[in-house]
Amino acid sequence: MNYERAWLDYEAGLSGPDVEKDGAVQLEIEIKTEADGGIQDAVMENAVRELRGAFGPKEQDGIRKIRLVKRQAPAGLSAEGYHLYEDKTVSNAGNEQQDGVFVIEASDSNGILYGAFELIRQARMGNTLRGLDILKHPGMPLRMMNHWDNMDGSIERGYSGNSFFFAEEKVLVNDRTSAYARLMASIGINAVVINNVNVDKAATLLITQKHFEPLKKMSEIFAGYGIKLYLSLNYAAPLELGELESADPLDEKVRGWWKKQMEIVFGEIPGLGGFLIKADSEGRPGPFTYGRTHADGANMLAEAVRPYGGLIIWRCFVYNCQQDWRDRKTDRARSGYDNFIGLDGAFLDNVILQIKNGPMDFQVREPVHPLFGGLTQTNQILEVQIAQEYTGQQRHVCYLLPMFCEILNFMTYVKEDEDTVKEIVSGRTFGQKNCGMAAVANTGNDENWTGHDLAAANLYGFGRLSFEPELSAQEIAKEWIRLTYGLDEQVEETILFLLMSSWPAYEKYTSPLGIGWMVNPNYHYGPSVDGYEYSRWGTYHRADHLGIGVDRSHAGTGYTQLYREPNASLYDDPEKCPDELLLFFHHMPYTWKLRSGKTIIQHIYDTHFEGVEMVDEMERRFAALDGRLPDAVYARIMGRLAHQKEHAREWCDQINTYFYRKTGISDEKNRKLY
Amino acid sequence: MNYERAWLDYEAGLSGPDVEKDGAVQLEIEIKTEADGGIQDAVMENAVRELRGAFGPKEQDGIRKIRLVKRQAPAGLSAEGYHLYEDKTVSNAGNEQQDGVFVIEASDSNGILYGAFELIRQARMGNTLRGLDILKHPGMPLRMMNHWDNMDGSIERGYSGNSFFFAEEKVLVNDRTSAYARLMASIGINAVVINNVNVDKAATLLITQKHFEPLKKMSEIFAGYGIKLYLSLNYAAPLELGELESADPLDEKVRGWWKKQMEIVFGEIPGLGGFLIKADSEGRPGPFTYGRTHADGANMLAEAVRPYGGLIIWRCFVYNCQQDWRDRKTDRARSGYDNFIGLDGAFLDNVILQIKNGPMDFQVREPVHPLFGGLTQTNQILEVQIAQEYTGQQRHVCYLLPMFCEILNFMTYVKEDEDTVKEIVSGRTFGQKNCGMAAVANTGNDENWTGHDLAAANLYGFGRLSFEPELSAQEIAKEWIRLTYGLDEQVEETILFLLMSSWPAYEKYTSPLGIGWMVNPNYHYGPSVDGYEYSRWGTYHRADHLGIGVDRSHAGTGYTQLYREPNASLYDDPEKCPDELLLFFHHMPYTWKLRSGKTIIQHIYDTHFEGVEMVDEMERRFAALDGRLPDAVYARIMGRLAHQKEHAREWCDQINTYFYRKTGISDEKNRKLY
Repeated sequence: MNYERAWLDYEAGLSGPDVEKDGAVQLEIEIKTEADGGIQDAVMENAVRELRGAFGPKEQDGIRKIRLVKRQAPAGLSAEGYHLYEDKTVSNAGNEQQDGVFVIEASDSNGILYGAFELIRQARMGNTLRGLDILKHPGMPLRMMNHWDNMDGSIERGYSGNSFFFAEEKVLVNDRTSAYARLMASIGINAVVINNVNVDKAATLLITQKHFEPLKKMSEIFAGYGIKLYLSLNYAAPLELGELESADPLDEKVRGWWKKQMEIVFGEIPGLGGFLIKADSEGRPGPFTYGRTHADGANMLAEAVRPYGGLIIWRCFVYNCQQDWRDRKTDRARSGYDNFIGLDGAFLDNVILQIKNGPMDFQVREPVHPLFGGLTQTNQILEVQIAQEYTGQQRHVCYLLPMFCEILNFMTYVKEDEDTVKEIVSGRTFGQKNCGMAAVANTGNDENWTGHDLAAANLYGFGRLSFEPELSAQEIAKEWIRLTYGLDEQVEETILFLLMSSWPAYEKYTSPLGIGWMVNPNYHYGPSVDGYEYSRWGTYHRADHLGIGVDRSHAGTGYTQLYREPNASLYDDPEKCPDELLLFFHHMPYTWKLRSGKTIIQHIYDTHFEGVEMVDEMERRFAALDGRLPDAVYARIMGRLAHQKEHAREWCDQINTYFYRKTGISDEKNRKLY
Repeated sequence: MNYERAWLDYEAGLSGPDVEKDGAVQLEIEIKTEADGGIQDAVMENAVRELRGAFGPKEQDGIRKIRLVKRQAPAGLSAEGYHLYEDKTVSNAGNEQQDGVFVIEASDSNGILYGAFELIRQARMGNTLRGLDILKHPGMPLRMMNHWDNMDGSIERGYSGNSFFFAEEKVLVNDRTSAYARLMASIGINAVVINNVNVDKAATLLITQKHFEPLKKMSEIFAGYGIKLYLSLNYAAPLELGELESADPLDEKVRGWWKKQMEIVFGEIPGLGGFLIKADSEGRPGPFTYGRTHADGANMLAEAVRPYGGLIIWRCFVYNCQQDWRDRKTDRARSGYDNFIGLDGAFLDNVILQIKNGPMDFQVREPVHPLFGGLTQTNQILEVQIAQEYTGQQRHVCYLLPMFCEILNFMTYVKEDEDTVKEIVSGRTFGQKNCGMAAVANTGNDENWTGHDLAAANLYGFGRLSFEPELSAQEIAKEWIRLTYGLDEQVEETILFLLMSSWPAYEKYTSPLGIGWMVNPNYHYGPSVDGYEYSRWGTYHRADHLGIGVDRSHAGTGYTQLYREPNASLYDDPEKCPDELLLFFHHMPYTWKLRSGKTIIQHIYDTHFEGVEMVDEMERRFAALDGRLPDAVYARIMGRLAHQKEHAREWCDQINTYFYRKTGISDEKNRKLY
């Protein structure tokens, strides 16, 4: 199957990076490495290959050199960091302008590779390279992709074709494996889980002899790009493989089995990083079966992988998915917190809790998960989802970086001056080293990797943000547009408009004010206001003809009280609660005046019509790019925009009609309701 | 795979048929056939085998003979009819009570076979055989099963396991084929379509060499039980088989292709009865593609099969399944009528239109399809569905015969004194010979054939009703209970209660007053009030906070005017319209007083609570049968009743809560709403 090179297509026609304009022209690279003199490993080799690919000789004029310097503990540089600068003290033969040599200095190969990609990015974005002086460290230790790929080649919540990791119960290792790793390395990803967290029978076998050979090959390819391979693990593996009759984490036989199995696995795949585990969640097995805690379960595995430097990443997505909709006391939003807060401090050092950004499940708007700021003695990974499960399934444009930036900058008040989610997952707040971010990946074997061409901005953006959490969503979007489509200003302005409008638009035309879930069950696509209202999933809006929303205040389920002050009081008071989360926290009458000054019902009508208008505008502007993008790209995006426009209209009409019929309250502006 | 013998288990333990009680005891049968002397064909052979199986010698006392008399045109007997009587004029050697000989007289083998099953039924039901004198003809020429089985072994809307006709793209012919045919023959079925009306690629090949051999074998087994094999046909077969580039019914090449293909098919499977076609419906191809009419399409096929006595059965289930829910002018209920009424008289004699019982799709309550009484020059088959797609999917008990009886007795006013649906499909009203009834079958390869043991009453009942449309649902239920579970009075009384309560109960706790469709999309199981409200399927309730229902009156979509008077006026006036169909025909305020004296909203609350209570009562009564039924049967039924009880409660609470939240009107009786 063919695939494109996404934002790393150095040959792309278009109005590609114009390196002529500021003298940094036509670089021919003479590679030198220092320290123990020479290219030392596959990562360095890939860095060199990448630089040659981007700057390879075209003409003989204006040659400049790049020197790669890897050495122990260079000034101000720690793991994976790099210093990229122009060294004018070194003469640069053949260059008329007396430009210096470019130096990429790092303490490890990953740093060199990331520095190389930085230099390429700077050049391709059209930035001047003169006087370049960039010193960077990744913003968090673990920058991770989670693929929900199944052994049969399907992808759970995949919207871009089938898996390129698996097909017909086999592990695939081919040129696309390298192409993928290269893309990931270019944005700073250093860990990849290749299989679905819901580990079925076939995937349970990934830790057996059956799949070691291709997995080892894959881990080596990944390693060449500074990436560790991770697997999702079946907690009940000893049972399902038919080797034991228990998976009790305190049973010595079980503990012994895991130790032995891990010895085998790491023996066969030395490059393995560790395991991701979804236990006691949505029907997955776990320690609860044996009356044990998540700490018992995670620590047992952590002990087994510790000798090999392995990590155990344990998901906190644990809740009662057999709730009775009549029950108003149980609150799914509380469950992650309630299940894990008592275990704070009980996990071994090589265990990390992976926490979804919000307490529910990747809705277009949720408050930040209260475990962030709750846990103080536990390694934490922030899990976000770039697979657009609830945000338009890569048929709608929905650039999610603005949301991720908001989440990272959320102040938890857990510690003075170092309390944001960003600081927690960087490890700074609590001095931890096993922390970071993970994204549920949005890739598949579609030619363009992500189904919707513009969804690649989320893939690119997640990596970049996890590496540089100080970047703004807009800066990231600009980078991606230039690297992908070149330096055409109209293209940049238009696509930037589309991307930056898309999340707000999607929020406007879907479920209002933080309530979420008004989607078709199972598919999670398209409107169904009551789709989850009478279900077992704990996902209710409680709308009647007078009001809507879930009372999670102190007088309700008490969820607001899981936050530290002043957040707890802010969320608890409907007068102070941010509008966009009001119905998440409170059941309010439709006639309630929002802080915006509008009633809830009028807000619903207005935002829905506005959302549709925004998509109209997006389509209108994009249409003007005809001829400025490759025909295939233009056609693919236009096709999806046409669908999005129609589908946004469908959302708008269904939601507005539902509330109009239920409340009997007319739209102040007398627009058409049905 | 094992299977049971259902109502034909002559060896069943239980308190089986007690043939001792009235002297008709311990029959040993001496078979004699007249006319051309001897058993003449497989049907006669099967009749004899059946009689031997039922009455085979147990003791030597009380021998009585049965004489099978097949001859041309016996007095008062036409096709498939039989005269079963005790002939006292013939001495019956060895019988002390001077009882006569039993005679089964018929003009054809089917008549003999049906007479044999009648005699067995009479005996096993415990009726006296003394003085027996029954002359019967089937109530309609075609008594048909439609299986929606796919070549991969799945069954569309199947709730009893997989297909016993197909697996892995192959036709299955084995002992279950005969067992099935025997069951069907015992209830008078004489035509069976084995494959799904949605004919996929694999099933398109059924009319090719690939499958002729097993199909021929199957048709021979069927023929031995008086049953003709039918196939569902892909209208676009010449295209899909890659042999032509058109399926235009007026294209001579297409017509020629079908003629030739049919010559081949009937040459290979001489016993074939003909074909069932779903065209231009829910995405199926059809003559509309070429701007032709259904008559053009059907007649082309009819000409091709006519030389072989074949029939073309053409479904009228044609509607726009891409409707916009905002559009209140289009009315799916009208579509069957509007599509076909103009073609009345345009079809060849060997074409039959197959019309669903109602204008929508097998809801628990619909008015009778207005094509019945509309068409006057077209052969018609009434299609009902015993697969419980919308009526509890064979997890709920829902005995459908009361509904079918109502439909058959519906007066269309098309012709004085011969205007009921029963008379139309019997062929009497318009003097037609290709008419009848078809049921979408509820069988699968489950051991008990129908998943729910009690669902077998629908299978049995449909056949019996199509053979004897004068029977009441209660009479049929009694027959089935006795034949299946023996003559235990408590068993009979209890199961009769369950069966006869079940349709009313299901109607009460599901969607109210004829509006239908409040089910989960795709699955069609379980409540979802708005599940089809904003869909493309033309299935809306239009509920707002003031009222509910679809205005199909003269002032609305005009659907009521498709009926003949006085039905048109009756349905058009909400004051006169039967309560149970009110919301099908009218949009009414919740406060409207029904003819029952209750408001609509109170009716909704009351019926839903009542429905749940009925199921409670059903379970309570059935529990008392412990020990009176085989353990496995008891356990299976109890298990399903427990689910039904819980699920009925779910229906009740969701529906009542939905309307309570929407209207704000309290229950007069202050029962719990959520």
